[in-house]
Amino acid sequence: MLNKARASEVMRRLGTMGLSQALICDPLSIWYLTGYYTEPYERFLALYLTGSCNKAEGVLFANYLFPDATTAADRLVLYSDADDPIALVAGETNYGQTLGVDKELTARWLLPLMEARAGSGFALASGAVDAARSIKSAEEQDLMREASRVNDKAMAWLTTQVHVGATEREIASRLLDEYRRLGADDHSFEPIVSFGVNAADPHHEPDDTTLAPGQMVLFDVGCKRRWYCSDMTRTFFTAKPTARQLEVYETVRRANEAAEAIVRPGVSFAEIDLTARRLIEDAGFGRYFTHRLGHQIGLQDHELGDVSAAHDEPVQAGQCFSIEPGIYIEGEIGVRIEDLLIVTEDGCELLNHYEKAPTVLET
Amino acid sequence: MLNKARASEVMRRLGTMGLSQALICDPLSIWYLTGYYTEPYERFLALYLTGSCNKAEGVLFANYLFPDATTAADRLVLYSDADDPIALVAGETNYGQTLGVDKELTARWLLPLMEARAGSGFALASGAVDAARSIKSAEEQDLMREASRVNDKAMAWLTTQVHVGATEREIASRLLDEYRRLGADDHSFEPIVSFGVNAADPHHEPDDTTLAPGQMVLFDVGCKRRWYCSDMTRTFFTAKPTARQLEVYETVRRANEAAEAIVRPGVSFAEIDLTARRLIEDAGFGRYFTHRLGHQIGLQDHELGDVSAAHDEPVQAGQCFSIEPGIYIEGEIGVRIEDLLIVTEDGCELLNHYEKAPTVLET
Repeated sequence: MLNKARASEVMRRLGTMGLSQALICDPLSIWYLTGYYTEPYERFLALYLTGSCNKAEGVLFANYLFPDATTAADRLVLYSDADDPIALVAGETNYGQTLGVDKELTARWLLPLMEARAGSGFALASGAVDAARSIKSAEEQDLMREASRVNDKAMAWLTTQVHVGATEREIASRLLDEYRRLGADDHSFEPIVSFGVNAADPHHEPDDTTLAPGQMVLFDVGCKRRWYCSDMTRTFFTAKPTARQLEVYETVRRANEAAEAIVRPGVSFAEIDLTARRLIEDAGFGRYFTHRLGHQIGLQDHELGDVSAAHDEPVQAGQCFSIEPGIYIEGEIGVRIEDLLIVTEDGCELLNHYEKAPTVLET
Repeated sequence: MLNKARASEVMRRLGTMGLSQALICDPLSIWYLTGYYTEPYERFLALYLTGSCNKAEGVLFANYLFPDATTAADRLVLYSDADDPIALVAGETNYGQTLGVDKELTARWLLPLMEARAGSGFALASGAVDAARSIKSAEEQDLMREASRVNDKAMAWLTTQVHVGATEREIASRLLDEYRRLGADDHSFEPIVSFGVNAADPHHEPDDTTLAPGQMVLFDVGCKRRWYCSDMTRTFFTAKPTARQLEVYETVRRANEAAEAIVRPGVSFAEIDLTARRLIEDAGFGRYFTHRLGHQIGLQDHELGDVSAAHDEPVQAGQCFSIEPGIYIEGEIGVRIEDLLIVTEDGCELLNHYEKAPTVLET
């Protein structure tokens, strides 16, 4: 069923972009607007939104092979593998107006839509949906809290799996069962388990590396529960840290906490990033913090509107994002500490409560 | 390292499409051409191909955060999260010529590329890569055989898991371990395990349905081994079939075998589809065969160029695709029988050897 409140909010935002119609393709955006979800793979799936912010209307284009979508929108246009769905879309759109398109619409469909002159022009429009998805309702905030509550518990479980001789892959592969035991549905992304110098690659994939005595351990993990995602990173010691290890660790922790401390409506994403970045730079590790500070999160682990120097918009109450500074020194050490938070009216609420003080695990 | 033979073949095919440059984005196509693989998620990754079929050249655009791509192409252009990769691409392309683009390039990048006038026009070009990928080399054919050999063994294992009271989800969730035990790396798609009337939905997802005595069981499963995919379906009985069940089953089996029997270079994909479809129609079940007959397969489970009435090109030696007729009668029965095959010089070689005669499993 088209969620009229959400669809109207999207139409309102489209209006401010000068658009009166849009084709939404991201399956999670379609779920957000209709409650209908399917992964179309190479087939075409789109929700055509039109009307006004008082009277939003939605037409869903779906293949006969997809799960039943009868009640997903105001109207359903079904096509078979022998049909050309683009001709059907072009028959619905207003060719005299610019057609807004989803950032996820692929060239495979976009170029034929242009050739069919489905709109007088084409413009990115999914920002309107992304902006609506970015502001979590009270109900969505509860779901975000709950997913992170499960993630806190999973982190505690992960620390019990750390033993000399265990492999990264073994620990990573057992996490899904634990998530399910805790009430989650799935990973929100492939878990990162990194031993020793492997943590110096922020995107290291768990492999057959076995834990050696005294190595540091990094877990960057998240689950999906009732559609909403969690995402947290902690880095642990398995022996008394050296002064250098502690210096790196505490620099990252202070950057994490300093950035979290300034979050409130009106502060820009760029300022939050810079707060953490300057602290790491001032400690002499600036060149080893190689990525943005964080990303928004919700139905997907990474949602648009990142926490980076390039994003100078102010944060708004109801937004949910990660704060995840890191220091990565190739061949030596990698530390990252990440929490999720929700922006409140006058600050922020952390969704992760797992300890951040330096912790030495028994192995 | 740019695979010059494959890149030259792609340039030759681009030339026949009137194109002299193309931007390839599908991570598996980039792997096919360079041996470099990464999943870029929301970040930009593309291989810009230019030059001639005698001297193909490749420039890879990658984020600093991706795994090291230094040797992937002739030249590497790295960008950070603060950079605009589209400006970098537009600085490389020939703006006086049409820029071929990958069907997987999303509007998020394609519309800015158009705005930056990276080409004098834009056209779908990944067909050139897909056509090259479609014709498997001798080495690739061996990898396809091996992946299906593992799949035949996995099907035998699956039949041992069929017990009254078992759930679809339990069986599906244990399959990955078995695949790995057999030497595969992963599923090539989420396995389909359907009991009883669930099989009447061709895309049914395994759920908590428990097997009741006498129910039919459908397995549609595939693995990835050393990058190449397998995909096979078998449908089993768990009690002596009724005359009606046997009629449906044997109609599907005859359709499968009749279609496989006519495959040789020069026969069109459409003729192969029609051979199976007519046989099912003549048996009175035409309206219950609701999908195309098959799809090409290789690095991905579903590759372009399907086996359907809409695809009238002739098949070529070295192509690999599925033959998977089915009959789906809602609330009653679902049967599908699927093999992979490779087109040879004078016929075809079946990659699956698992029994297709009606089989009653002990439960």
